[in-house]
Amino acid sequence: MNKQFAVIGLGRFGGSICRELLEQGMEVLAMDVDEERVNEFASIATHAVIADTTDENVLKNLGLRNFDHVIVAIGEDIQSSILTTLMLKEIGVKHITVKAQNDYHEKVLRKIGADHVVHPERDMGRRIAHYIVSNNVLDYLELSDEYSIVEIKVNEKLAGKSLIELDVRAKYGLNIVAIKRKREIIVSPAAADPLLLEDILIVIGADSDINRFETKLMN
Amino acid sequence: MNKQFAVIGLGRFGGSICRELLEQGMEVLAMDVDEERVNEFASIATHAVIADTTDENVLKNLGLRNFDHVIVAIGEDIQSSILTTLMLKEIGVKHITVKAQNDYHEKVLRKIGADHVVHPERDMGRRIAHYIVSNNVLDYLELSDEYSIVEIKVNEKLAGKSLIELDVRAKYGLNIVAIKRKREIIVSPAAADPLLLEDILIVIGADSDINRFETKLMN
Ligand SMILES: Nc1ncnc2c1ncn2[C@@H]1O[C@H](COP(=O)(O)OP(=O)(O)OP(=O)(O)O)[C@@H](O)[C@H]1O
Ligand SMILES: Nc1ncnc2c1ncn2[C@@H]1O[C@H](COP(=O)(O)OP(=O)(O)OP(=O)(O)O)[C@@H](O)[C@H]1O
Ligand SMILES: [Ca+2]
Ligand SMILES: [Ca+2]
Ligand SMILES: [Ca+2]
Ligand SMILES: [Ca+2]
Repeated sequence: MNKQFAVIGLGRFGGSICRELLEQGMEVLAMDVDEERVNEFASIATHAVIADTTDENVLKNLGLRNFDHVIVAIGEDIQSSILTTLMLKEIGVKHITVKAQNDYHEKVLRKIGADHVVHPERDMGRRIAHYIVSNNVLDYLELSDEYSIVEIKVNEKLAGKSLIELDVRAKYGLNIVAIKRKREIIVSPAAADPLLLEDILIVIGADSDINRFETKLMN
Repeated sequence: MNKQFAVIGLGRFGGSICRELLEQGMEVLAMDVDEERVNEFASIATHAVIADTTDENVLKNLGLRNFDHVIVAIGEDIQSSILTTLMLKEIGVKHITVKAQNDYHEKVLRKIGADHVVHPERDMGRRIAHYIVSNNVLDYLELSDEYSIVEIKVNEKLAGKSLIELDVRAKYGLNIVAIKRKREIIVSPAAADPLLLEDILIVIGADSDINRFETKLMN
């Protein structure tokens, strides 16, 4: 049987989660206190209901207890977000993911039992700041505070050189785990092959080492 | 000389970009019409000013024309976002990144010359929907339509096994490029070491192979 999801708060974030879950074939109950928002989802969600989720009876009557995962994507109204989370936990929902506004909000959410707390705007702001600073970094995955995987575009300075010549492992402590060449992904690339202009290197390493490499690249 | 950045709109998204740019040592002019928001950034930003950026004179007097990159992170007020972008373009700012609320907003922004249009809540909603569907995938970087790097949590089924025993390369065509163990990142992990419960594998491969591996993992 398919897992059952509920999304509370159909703003841009909650709405996007809802759509993506539906695209992946999941069953999703979409909820918002705002009628207009609910109407947008009426024809695509498995069920769409207008409801104020700070009302415990609403949650019980909708049988939310039986859902596998509930996502609370209420934004500005921190109090409603906290109250909703608290009651979802009390009725026994197994997995609860909540969007937080700030660190204080996150702290409260964790204390009352939210399983995952997310900061979509903050995380995306960080990601985008990364590409903005470096014209070469296209995307990245933060592995920890200090380590990342980044996509670096091969410029004139790198093109024609092989991985042996660049020797980024010895010089920068970085590993090139793959190369994106047009639409192809080359995993464990051959060390002697010359890089092509516009190749994209998938590089893993410490942020400080990645920064050193980038700086070198650009100058 | 350091590049000069300006961030207009210090909500969660704009604020996060601003902080991250500053952390990376960039010079950032932080602007918002809301005094409280500006005060939050007064002590960390290079300059922080209260300003309504829909006023052309404001932009001119602040010398925004000389900035390398301006980020417009005005949210709900689509009209102000459009007007601000239009005027930044007119005074000759070279790179303009704008946060959009929806596809219609994006279309207008592109027509008037925004260089990058971003949808932070939507993109993050998609990412998070991915990990929600799969209990094991924690984060991912899409390399192409068919290839990704994903973070997979080691469960009871994998714990105690070594990479040699798992042999994911032969069995699934996947490469494990690193292991996250508590706060440590182990790049090029030793093939004979047993995995620990709660280790996180950083895996690169075709989406279909990753899915096969995940399915196997869970059953
Ligand atoms: N008590 C509640 N019950 C149900 N829905 C609610 C409740 N309170 C707020 N919401 C809904 O949550 C949605 C998201 O809230 P809001 O727009 O404040 O967040 P946001 O963080 O600005 O959203 P986003 O950035 O994702 O667009 C709104 O559509 C709002 O109607
Ligand atoms: N004309 C303007 N000039 C300068 N700043 C503005 C203007 N209009 C709005 N802002 C500011 O932009 C910021 C972001 O706007 P808003 O809070 O509506 O967006 P949001 O998308 O909900 O934000 P986020 O999701 O990033 O928290 C606010 O702090 C607001 O004061
Ligand atoms: Ca938002
Ligand atoms: Ca970091
Ligand atoms: Ca908002
Ligand atoms: Ca895909």
